[in-house]
Amino acid sequence: MLPLLTRLDHVGIACRDLRRAIDMYRETFGVGVLTLEENEEQGVREAMLAVGPSGAGPGSLGVGYIQLLEPLGPDTPVGRFIARRGEGIHHVGYRVEDIREALATVAGTGIRLVDDRPRHGSMGASIAFLHPGDLGGVLTELVQPLS
Amino acid sequence: MLPLLTRLDHVGIACRDLRRAIDMYRETFGVGVLTLEENEEQGVREAMLAVGPSGAGPGSLGVGYIQLLEPLGPDTPVGRFIARRGEGIHHVGYRVEDIREALATVAGTGIRLVDDRPRHGSMGASIAFLHPGDLGGVLTELVQPLS
Repeated sequence: MLPLLTRLDHVGIACRDLRRAIDMYRETFGVGVLTLEENEEQGVREAMLAVGPSGAGPGSLGVGYIQLLEPLGPDTPVGRFIARRGEGIHHVGYRVEDIREALATVAGTGIRLVDDRPRHGSMGASIAFLHPGDLGGVLTELVQPLS
Repeated sequence: MLPLLTRLDHVGIACRDLRRAIDMYRETFGVGVLTLEENEEQGVREAMLAVGPSGAGPGSLGVGYIQLLEPLGPDTPVGRFIARRGEGIHHVGYRVEDIREALATVAGTGIRLVDDRPRHGSMGASIAFLHPGDLGGVLTELVQPLS
């Protein structure tokens, strides 16, 4: 079997106040905001922070992202996560070459898919979540970046 | 301020049964084990799985790791984590150029350090943890790989 995951793409972090979280990461680690988006479908306002040498763009290898997620309301997945567990790491995202092919491969191993079709993710990526109940409690996201 | 974090290094995942978790990641995603270690000081048995094109070694850029952590007993940090929250994502690790310099910089911003001196981490790396209470609930690890 070929490796399905081509790199560790991002860690998704649930926070109550996006602006405050952005400031904290900038002041502590010097990481800057690459994009700010609102994703109504997923009920979040989010920021992608670039980890790595400055100037590395979204498509470049060797860079990972910190994705800060502020819920748009309490009755959203991230809002419920914070109510239940507090702020903290929400999910991990891995990059794949072809998300449809990856989803078919993963489904074939018996893992339940949260999204059986790719959805719209950060920075124009196609993304899909896999069920944490089948993956040792880890909410796992597959990411095919905008090419 | 220069970027302190040079890349997303790994996501640390707490699991009850290391062997089972390794099998699951191999069968689902085709990721293989790079190293298996026991770290008594941290109370874990652990595996580093390489995410990325096969053949990429520990020092190569563009690869991240999945670090699976099985507690050596219930009265260890990871054992207590699992008892409290269940299996799942435990921490995130970022790579830095110089861990002593990075710790001094982070301490200077007022963030509490779990480790005020570097400790022995996976694959010969020097590592240190920062306090989740000052980082939005995220247990954060700094990693300077063995050079």
